[in-house]
Amino acid sequence: MILVLEKNIKDNHLDDLINILSEEGISYNLIGGLRKSIYVEDTNLDPSFLGDYPGIEKIYGDNDHFLLSSRDLKKEDTIIDIRGRKIGGGNFLNIGGPCSVESRESLLEIGKSIKESGGDILRGGTYKLRTSPYSFQGLKDEGLKILLEVGKELDIPLVSEIVDPRQIEEFMDLDLIQVGARNMKNYELLKELGKVDIPIILKRGMDSTIDEFLKSAEYILVGGNEKVILCERGIRTFEQRTRNTLDLSVVPILKDITHLPVIVDPSHGVGIRKYVKNLSYGASIVGADGLMIECHNDPDRALSDSMQQVSLEEYGKILRNVRKILDLNIYGD
Amino acid sequence: MILVLEKNIKDNHLDDLINILSEEGISYNLIGGLRKSIYVEDTNLDPSFLGDYPGIEKIYGDNDHFLLSSRDLKKEDTIIDIRGRKIGGGNFLNIGGPCSVESRESLLEIGKSIKESGGDILRGGTYKLRTSPYSFQGLKDEGLKILLEVGKELDIPLVSEIVDPRQIEEFMDLDLIQVGARNMKNYELLKELGKVDIPIILKRGMDSTIDEFLKSAEYILVGGNEKVILCERGIRTFEQRTRNTLDLSVVPILKDITHLPVIVDPSHGVGIRKYVKNLSYGASIVGADGLMIECHNDPDRALSDSMQQVSLEEYGKILRNVRKILDLNIYGD
Amino acid sequence: MILVLEKNIKDNHLDDLINILSEEGISYNLIGGLRKSIYVEDTNLDPSFLGDYPGIEKIYGDNDHFLLSSRDLKKEDTIIDIRGRKIGGGNFLNIGGPCSVESRESLLEIGKSIKESGGDILRGGTYKLRTSPYSFQGLKDEGLKILLEVGKELDIPLVSEIVDPRQIEEFMDLDLIQVGARNMKNYELLKELGKVDIPIILKRGMDSTIDEFLKSAEYILVGGNEKVILCERGIRTFEQRTRNTLDLSVVPILKDITHLPVIVDPSHGVGIRKYVKNLSYGASIVGADGLMIECHNDPDRALSDSMQQVSLEEYGKILRNVRKILDLNIYGD
Amino acid sequence: MILVLEKNIKDNHLDDLINILSEEGISYNLIGGLRKSIYVEDTNLDPSFLGDYPGIEKIYGDNDHFLLSSRDLKKEDTIIDIRGRKIGGGNFLNIGGPCSVESRESLLEIGKSIKESGGDILRGGTYKLRTSPYSFQGLKDEGLKILLEVGKELDIPLVSEIVDPRQIEEFMDLDLIQVGARNMKNYELLKELGKVDIPIILKRGMDSTIDEFLKSAEYILVGGNEKVILCERGIRTFEQRTRNTLDLSVVPILKDITHLPVIVDPSHGVGIRKYVKNLSYGASIVGADGLMIECHNDPDRALSDSMQQVSLEEYGKILRNVRKILDLNIYGD
Repeated sequence: MILVLEKNIKDNHLDDLINILSEEGISYNLIGGLRKSIYVEDTNLDPSFLGDYPGIEKIYGDNDHFLLSSRDLKKEDTIIDIRGRKIGGGNFLNIGGPCSVESRESLLEIGKSIKESGGDILRGGTYKLRTSPYSFQGLKDEGLKILLEVGKELDIPLVSEIVDPRQIEEFMDLDLIQVGARNMKNYELLKELGKVDIPIILKRGMDSTIDEFLKSAEYILVGGNEKVILCERGIRTFEQRTRNTLDLSVVPILKDITHLPVIVDPSHGVGIRKYVKNLSYGASIVGADGLMIECHNDPDRALSDSMQQVSLEEYGKILRNVRKILDLNIYGD
Repeated sequence: MILVLEKNIKDNHLDDLINILSEEGISYNLIGGLRKSIYVEDTNLDPSFLGDYPGIEKIYGDNDHFLLSSRDLKKEDTIIDIRGRKIGGGNFLNIGGPCSVESRESLLEIGKSIKESGGDILRGGTYKLRTSPYSFQGLKDEGLKILLEVGKELDIPLVSEIVDPRQIEEFMDLDLIQVGARNMKNYELLKELGKVDIPIILKRGMDSTIDEFLKSAEYILVGGNEKVILCERGIRTFEQRTRNTLDLSVVPILKDITHLPVIVDPSHGVGIRKYVKNLSYGASIVGADGLMIECHNDPDRALSDSMQQVSLEEYGKILRNVRKILDLNIYGD
Repeated sequence: MILVLEKNIKDNHLDDLINILSEEGISYNLIGGLRKSIYVEDTNLDPSFLGDYPGIEKIYGDNDHFLLSSRDLKKEDTIIDIRGRKIGGGNFLNIGGPCSVESRESLLEIGKSIKESGGDILRGGTYKLRTSPYSFQGLKDEGLKILLEVGKELDIPLVSEIVDPRQIEEFMDLDLIQVGARNMKNYELLKELGKVDIPIILKRGMDSTIDEFLKSAEYILVGGNEKVILCERGIRTFEQRTRNTLDLSVVPILKDITHLPVIVDPSHGVGIRKYVKNLSYGASIVGADGLMIECHNDPDRALSDSMQQVSLEEYGKILRNVRKILDLNIYGD
Repeated sequence: MILVLEKNIKDNHLDDLINILSEEGISYNLIGGLRKSIYVEDTNLDPSFLGDYPGIEKIYGDNDHFLLSSRDLKKEDTIIDIRGRKIGGGNFLNIGGPCSVESRESLLEIGKSIKESGGDILRGGTYKLRTSPYSFQGLKDEGLKILLEVGKELDIPLVSEIVDPRQIEEFMDLDLIQVGARNMKNYELLKELGKVDIPIILKRGMDSTIDEFLKSAEYILVGGNEKVILCERGIRTFEQRTRNTLDLSVVPILKDITHLPVIVDPSHGVGIRKYVKNLSYGASIVGADGLMIECHNDPDRALSDSMQQVSLEEYGKILRNVRKILDLNIYGD
């Protein structure tokens, strides 16, 4: 049950509510983000019990499974500010970088080029999730250290993927934290990320429906962290020629039902370098709020996902064309 | 086995080849289209048997399962001319019209509007394939009659969907014949369509891989009809909110491996009216050669697929924006 | 709309109903099978118009999309008699034979062995549906001729797969007609099979849901042919090691909601010879009414689907074990 | 790279190997389980470097992605002993219990009944993974406490599901630890479970292929814990009538390629109470080594997954019938 509080709820009314819940031994969670609201965990509680209290605007039941991410609760786009770079509400965010951080030198070269091309954020995998225990698992803490150094040197915001709730301390210096597709249903990790004040990029699971995706986002939002960016990165289909099938059609649907920003990762989505540009353009025109593209100074020699990383030149070209597409302002009035 | 003949094969060399095959009792099929070639059905025949004959450029085995549609055999785009409207090789084709032909009046109104909006082809379902035997099955021959009359009156080329090989005679006056997704693997129907001289729009099956799609096209091409247009119309995924999941990512892949034109049907692809525009724009930018959009003069009262048909005003607006997107010439030099 | 008539409807009441429909110009179809009923195509007709007529037991609307196959309409199992061999209502039917009819000699050897092993029906593919136009397409009419000869000589009922509505005349001498998975949604073919008096084995499409499967069966039943046997033969999943994923879980669900017999084809279902026995046993215990198993006198040299055909010895062994499993009478009282 | 050591490798040879790896600064992991072997993480190491060292039987490359679980490395079935109850190598294990631990009283009643019915292990969910943050999340540590008490009182081994690597200490008193389908690719959790000496039940992910499933098991095996039980619990398909589609066909395939025990969870697999018995029988006959069935003393009032839990009477009946099926010894000589 979620109690959405009045926008200008008086302090004494809020205190009263908190008191009554505490006295009754009802476990609750005060959510300060999107709208001041209280999440009450007791599923057996009769909503009418609280119905008359002043300060409550509306009571939602537990079947409204992605209430906080829904436009039912918040009409306007969520805009997230990452050290001056914005996403949502018409702001487009470009994230670029290698699949994995491999060395200080290469990351510096890549980061510089991305910045010159107009990219906003530098990504770099540190702890890698690989299907086989025998595959390269990333440079781990060493990679994270390199990433932070390069980010500081270039003054560019950073994002990397977290794979374990025990890593949260280690990731606190990043500007964005990414949750990978395989962890979209790792709810214990999501709960921890609900407690931090860093924007989260939540990637869609390979077999995930829209509703499951938003329910996962809800795990973060309920915890109090309202800065969630949804990322489409390809779903699993019967197709054998590509790693995944990038689902561009999900973008306008998500934008319709949630106020959260939506970005697209065409690199994992298709897994083949030469198609990344087409799908980047596609993402830009169907309504995405940003792109996460893997690029590398020497793609053929990349230690992981070599097949899907574009060159730095190609990355620059893609960003120029994306700009042209956005300038059409096709949905504008 | 396919014998690809030399471009300028001499008549006597061709005669010799035909003779030797006939004399040996080998069943074959002379394909006159893309490249003059001979398809030999006998799978046990030793290719070396014919290897030295003059006039043969190359011999392909039976594992080259979509040889005729592949760019291996033909590098340049296939361009199809439909009474002056072209598709392929940079030409973009706009097909519009109602899901089903419902009456002469409404079809006339729709057709006029489509023409004014710059649409090239009028579509209209006559024999409908419906999952339930109790659903509206189309006006059938009556619908086809109306379609032909309206096409004549408006001087606009026509397309409708064939559902049975016994209907071929009835469909000979159309400018394009469509094969629906459910019939993509109806090989007997495809074989018949290989014998006609009318362009075929082949829709991708809901669970079809790219290779299966092209092998189905191959059934038509092998028969001698080289005018095949591939149509992506949504695949089946786990998503429950939409009828299908439009796979825009398949467009650049298809364009890469086949010379056949590729169009997109966003109406069936997503099945919800308000998302049709976004996906139309997406299709235009990822590299499609055309769009098939369902539109109706009174979408809410349409007899079939009411949910997914856009209004005539919306159709006009979409076409204007598609034009702007194409004019970016994003892949041009 | 379906009018289910009283079991002992008087002739004059039936005549009256027919007359009123004819006079009103309403198109209808008298279904004589499961329950005498009338299918009225006019979807706009007000059901109350006929509500008071004597002889009508119940009126079903068009949303009851698989009414005739449902246990709502007919509680008891449909039992089908194929020249003395029965299926349904506790009767188990064993169908065996090669993927394709290859020669008179081999088919004779296979048929004899199947009969000795206790098999009931001889199957043999004649017109083959193959994904590639370059694959072996069956012996066609020649194969059908051999099949009929061998069936006569061994006095064993026969089944083969139809692929085109134009073949119906040719298939009229068979004891069962099979519709393949690729044609499960070839509704024009199903409509034709609704008019014949031969039992139909309808295979489930690779991406088909239970409801779609039963709606396809409904196309046959509505036409008046009540002898439909449903066949699970594997669905498409993400698994790469097997051709398909045999869905044994669908058997108890189908048996619960439909009165039609359900058989399982483990050969196509898994596509690998060594697993056929396990899945045959599984099918027998979960509640199937029969098995269709591909077997061959020399599986390694079979012209099609060599991988999945078991030897004649293995076939005999499987049938003996299936008998033991059925004798457990595990669901009996 | 995995160095499989000779069965009776001499101590000094093993020491030599360890020394050379340490001296060269090569990171390695000594695996003591299935076969004494050394896993070398350095992917760039030339295998020939170690080829001549005495004590090495074979060197496997990193593409043998599920080497340790494969029958290539170990032919005979892995047999796991859980306080006297065995699984694998012909031993069948029955696990039963409620979806969630709800109270001491109900768990005691359920546990007693399971023991009387011949069940081997008591299961009970404590930390629940739910798609929505607003659904009942289990009694957590309180539930675990109840489970341990009841297990002690009834002297029955216990299993519950872990959802976070930080919970390992808390789960050390259980006899088996379960990893749920959503966590099959939570590799950090799997790595931790590779370090404990408790058998792990690893559930197959809903969209997981066989290879991915075994690669996940490999994460545990590589860590040194060789006691892994694979559990099929239903995959995601297009079917809408059931929660999942139980894939019984995977059982004989898994049994063929891995030596690990395989069990089936028909409760989650189909999600509907009345079909659980059929699928339990199916699992028993296709070759599974055990069953995990959810049962409850009052299924209709269960706090989670009420739909799929069978009554205690039904559970007893299923176990009796499973015994009859196993006694057929259908694959025996």
